[in-house]
Amino acid sequence: MSNYQAGPHLSQIEIPADLRDKFSEEELPEVCNELRQFIIDVVSEKGGHFGASLGVVEMTVALHYVFNTPVDQLVWDVGHQAYGHKILTGRREAFDTNRKYKGVSGFPKRSESEYDTFGVGHSSTSISGALGMAVANRVQNKPDVNHIAVIGDGAMTAGLAFEALNHGGVEDTNLLVILNDNCMSIDPNVGALKEYLTDITTSHTYNKVKDEVWNLLGKISKFGPNAQAIAQKVENGIKSALLKQSNLFESLNFRYFGPIDGHDVEYMVKVLKDLKDIPGPKLLHCVTTKGKGFAPAERESATKWHAPGIFNKDTGEIIKVAPKSPQPPKYQDVFGHTIIELAEKNEKIVGVTPAMPTGCSLKFMMEAMPERAFDVGIAEQHAVTFSAGMATQGLLPFCNIYSSFMQRAYDQVVHDVALQKLNVVFCLDRGGLVGADGPTHHGVFDLAYMRSIPNMVVSSPMDEQEMRNLMFTAQLPDMGPFTIRYPRGNGVMTEWKTPMKRIKVGTGRRIKNGTDLAILTIGPIGHEATAAIEQLEKEGMSVAHYDMRFVKPIDEVLLHEVLGKFQKVITVEDGCLQGGMGSAVLEFMADHGYTAQVKRLGVPDKFIEHGTQAELYAECGFDSAAIVAAAGEMVSRATKKLVG
Amino acid sequence: MSNYQAGPHLSQIEIPADLRDKFSEEELPEVCNELRQFIIDVVSEKGGHFGASLGVVEMTVALHYVFNTPVDQLVWDVGHQAYGHKILTGRREAFDTNRKYKGVSGFPKRSESEYDTFGVGHSSTSISGALGMAVANRVQNKPDVNHIAVIGDGAMTAGLAFEALNHGGVEDTNLLVILNDNCMSIDPNVGALKEYLTDITTSHTYNKVKDEVWNLLGKISKFGPNAQAIAQKVENGIKSALLKQSNLFESLNFRYFGPIDGHDVEYMVKVLKDLKDIPGPKLLHCVTTKGKGFAPAERESATKWHAPGIFNKDTGEIIKVAPKSPQPPKYQDVFGHTIIELAEKNEKIVGVTPAMPTGCSLKFMMEAMPERAFDVGIAEQHAVTFSAGMATQGLLPFCNIYSSFMQRAYDQVVHDVALQKLNVVFCLDRGGLVGADGPTHHGVFDLAYMRSIPNMVVSSPMDEQEMRNLMFTAQLPDMGPFTIRYPRGNGVMTEWKTPMKRIKVGTGRRIKNGTDLAILTIGPIGHEATAAIEQLEKEGMSVAHYDMRFVKPIDEVLLHEVLGKFQKVITVEDGCLQGGMGSAVLEFMADHGYTAQVKRLGVPDKFIEHGTQAELYAECGFDSAAIVAAAGEMVSRATKKLVG
Repeated sequence: MSNYQAGPHLSQIEIPADLRDKFSEEELPEVCNELRQFIIDVVSEKGGHFGASLGVVEMTVALHYVFNTPVDQLVWDVGHQAYGHKILTGRREAFDTNRKYKGVSGFPKRSESEYDTFGVGHSSTSISGALGMAVANRVQNKPDVNHIAVIGDGAMTAGLAFEALNHGGVEDTNLLVILNDNCMSIDPNVGALKEYLTDITTSHTYNKVKDEVWNLLGKISKFGPNAQAIAQKVENGIKSALLKQSNLFESLNFRYFGPIDGHDVEYMVKVLKDLKDIPGPKLLHCVTTKGKGFAPAERESATKWHAPGIFNKDTGEIIKVAPKSPQPPKYQDVFGHTIIELAEKNEKIVGVTPAMPTGCSLKFMMEAMPERAFDVGIAEQHAVTFSAGMATQGLLPFCNIYSSFMQRAYDQVVHDVALQKLNVVFCLDRGGLVGADGPTHHGVFDLAYMRSIPNMVVSSPMDEQEMRNLMFTAQLPDMGPFTIRYPRGNGVMTEWKTPMKRIKVGTGRRIKNGTDLAILTIGPIGHEATAAIEQLEKEGMSVAHYDMRFVKPIDEVLLHEVLGKFQKVITVEDGCLQGGMGSAVLEFMADHGYTAQVKRLGVPDKFIEHGTQAELYAECGFDSAAIVAAAGEMVSRATKKLVG
Repeated sequence: MSNYQAGPHLSQIEIPADLRDKFSEEELPEVCNELRQFIIDVVSEKGGHFGASLGVVEMTVALHYVFNTPVDQLVWDVGHQAYGHKILTGRREAFDTNRKYKGVSGFPKRSESEYDTFGVGHSSTSISGALGMAVANRVQNKPDVNHIAVIGDGAMTAGLAFEALNHGGVEDTNLLVILNDNCMSIDPNVGALKEYLTDITTSHTYNKVKDEVWNLLGKISKFGPNAQAIAQKVENGIKSALLKQSNLFESLNFRYFGPIDGHDVEYMVKVLKDLKDIPGPKLLHCVTTKGKGFAPAERESATKWHAPGIFNKDTGEIIKVAPKSPQPPKYQDVFGHTIIELAEKNEKIVGVTPAMPTGCSLKFMMEAMPERAFDVGIAEQHAVTFSAGMATQGLLPFCNIYSSFMQRAYDQVVHDVALQKLNVVFCLDRGGLVGADGPTHHGVFDLAYMRSIPNMVVSSPMDEQEMRNLMFTAQLPDMGPFTIRYPRGNGVMTEWKTPMKRIKVGTGRRIKNGTDLAILTIGPIGHEATAAIEQLEKEGMSVAHYDMRFVKPIDEVLLHEVLGKFQKVITVEDGCLQGGMGSAVLEFMADHGYTAQVKRLGVPDKFIEHGTQAELYAECGFDSAAIVAAAGEMVSRATKKLVG
């Protein structure tokens, strides 16, 4: 039973059919108020995404009121705005477990509810998904099913959304795209499309122009038959120009409606009812405000209120437990500050982020050196190829992309950067298990997919100092494509602004000697090994620890040392076991005839759900306790053999 | 020295400066004639891409005439239209080695010429690349450098191009996009953008409308002061609607010019000279004809003349050496015919291709069952997510994408299909080394990048019968995400339409027994092993051969058998060694404590250039001769050890 009390209307809604059956259109504003309050109550105490969900409260209620969900297929793009949807679709009681281990997912998810028609997390998939559904139901003769994709103006900049519009415009389907235009991604939206949308929503609107032309044509005809003839003659031309081609979406053969106020629930209901009866692909442009209805979120930066953590719902004060002593920095901030230090000395350095300047901390460079730091919008593919283009002219781009989002630019990394051996540094943020965002956001495939690419250096620092040294190394002349992968979260050093020095590419380091067993780690997960080794040594085992630092090129000298000395090796990585760092070690062994016993610890061959990073490391079996257990088993198994 | 004689003008042009220095604008049509003839002379005898290069002869000459290449940066999208460019930029003499092993590449390539500013091959990278160059030269204070991206209307449908336009529209750079509109990809172009471009180039054009509105406004003003006022009042509104927002590209803040005739070289020169002086992002829409100037290519299917092979340049007859006996089919045709057979019985099956209906042979299904087969345009990302959407409604999409192009949809495979465990069959065409298309098109990373993904079945058939059985198996109920990977080229069976049967997922098969050594192979490259084994057995060695058939799940029973019996194992795959099938075997061995000596043969850690498949298998060391050598070394090494 939830600790949170819903208002008198909301508490009567278990599923959307209740909303439709029990309430009149006039009561919907009150339903919205209660839904908004419920979100504020829970998120202020439990954390999670905030601004986006508040911004679509009215849209959420209107959609479930007008459409026959779950028969009608409602797809939320990205999905961090879908809290209202979750609360209205059977998950109100469970909602206070949102984003907790084993709790409700922060994103729509097919396995969680029949109302979650398409699992989301990465941006810009909704139109493709909904179009697929619409075509499928056409093929299967289900003409009555409606298909609705709700997509933000930020997500609309990604190429996938455009590809879907281009295809959707020529398919005769029951597809409604709702453009949720709040001028924001997590950070303010950028690019020409944003300017275009602003243009058509502000005073000199498309609609006004349209109206004025109709007025004009009306008035011209009063000037006599000659004028009437002229007016008639050009009317078709103007109509086609204005109505068919004058709008970007209508260029792509979507009928365009709007812009309308996305916070007027009764009007939205009316418009959606009308649109329901119009066949073919159509787009409704709704203007909304992120954080709507919670004064501090409306007033202050939308980025701040995207996922504010815990806050006082009365005062709007964000509650941060002040640490007693200085804390290690986030790896993100190590990146953000270090790139400025480097760029001050190396004028070739530029920074690139696809719509994550705050998340990855490139915002510091964007403030300090605006002419050398670029937010290209939600456009990972372009971010990489754009970086390649800059590199051809002698610049050195640091292209910062979250590991799981880099999956979207894999071809560009291979084809535009690695094949041309260009000097581009890929900073893969949020490598490894990310925590509460869950399976869509875990960056677990990167070591494997990057390692296959010729010419690519693949590295991961164990701590902040190493991170800085790798960044320093990567910007030295002609290093070629260079990947630095690091996790979400904090490092381990309170004094981290250490002098930077070059690391020889392809060299790891011995952290500690030992005799019974060697543990090879890559990245900050190495600290789990450090803790495990402390425990193991207390138990009388002698364990060596090596930080590989590079997965590619892998340190062959180090591996010859390890494999010449040890018959038992454990590899630990915060990444997938199939093809990852451990596999690279096995390949080296096969190529050089080593036969040590190797236990690989890492992310197993399944999608990992959400939870804290510590919970997930434990679940996957590579936290310090699991390393201790693996080491114990290896040695005891050996002992048994000796005894047996 | 080339066997091909250039005309009197062309033979004076070694580099574009010659073109600019030696010829007047009036002479350019003759230069174009000679350039076109040279392309016809060489390609008719040597093969290669044809229609696209003929279509841009005038554009190529005009661009090099007006712009100061190579200082000005000219980027060709895809690049199979760049033969004229290559011939004008120092490679006329070498051009008859085009696409041959160690010869000129079929695509622009930075390492080949300073005039090749950006390596291409995959579509739609040119605007991102050129924008990167333009921004870089702005950052570096080189305002005089021009940046030109030449992109086809087909390539314009890919999301990457849109992402680049969205960013380019807000960057104040010296960027000119030339839209080469020939209504074609390799197959006819599809989608709403194509219809839009057709609209604005045909009779009721954007330009005509524009003209008529100006005429109207002029005439209105004759009706007296009142009308003048009205006209004045709406003129701004109409201007903004028509000029700023009425065009898709102008919506994105590119100044739009055209459409113009892309075969009028003198007019093109004039327009390009004008555009050179206009600052900011701009787009010139040129209408061209694929195959222009070669009557059969203009008259007949552009798809046929995309890369026709060798032909009689006088009659236009395509020369095919008729085989004496029935030949094995292309794997592509096995796919194309088998999907129809399956779809006739299983009404859930649909087919999807991103712009490759002819190349992958989905065209047969598009003809036979047009309502169930979809060409979505150059849009690999959308092809995958669209398939996912269809699968949520119970359909079973066979999504056919070339292996190297699937790199562009990696995130969608992970996030939209595998994570949701949807029933989508990925037919990865052109897996492995593809031959003359070279490094951009080799599909060598797929086994590695697919194998890391949970829930994914990864298979590759050794022959046509196996291919059909895998396709049959993949369409059985609830198989989940299922990859079938096969190469470019012909199979081995003349009687290939065998009855289909279910294969147990995750099972390989023993092709042959042996005692000295086991060879494990995946896919048709297994026939190289078969040939090698014949040779080895003649030399007295006893070699077992296993066709793994699945890389994931890997056949553990088979591997226990192999590793329990053999101390020497060779793995052979037409794919990258880092993380590929051989690595999967090593992972199994590590997990189960096996210590056999394993030699992995496959594509080494470098980008492989173009050549015939046989040449490249030999270069990479996994043709039959290389397998014989590897086996010989393993056994003799063992013998030496025994002796020593």
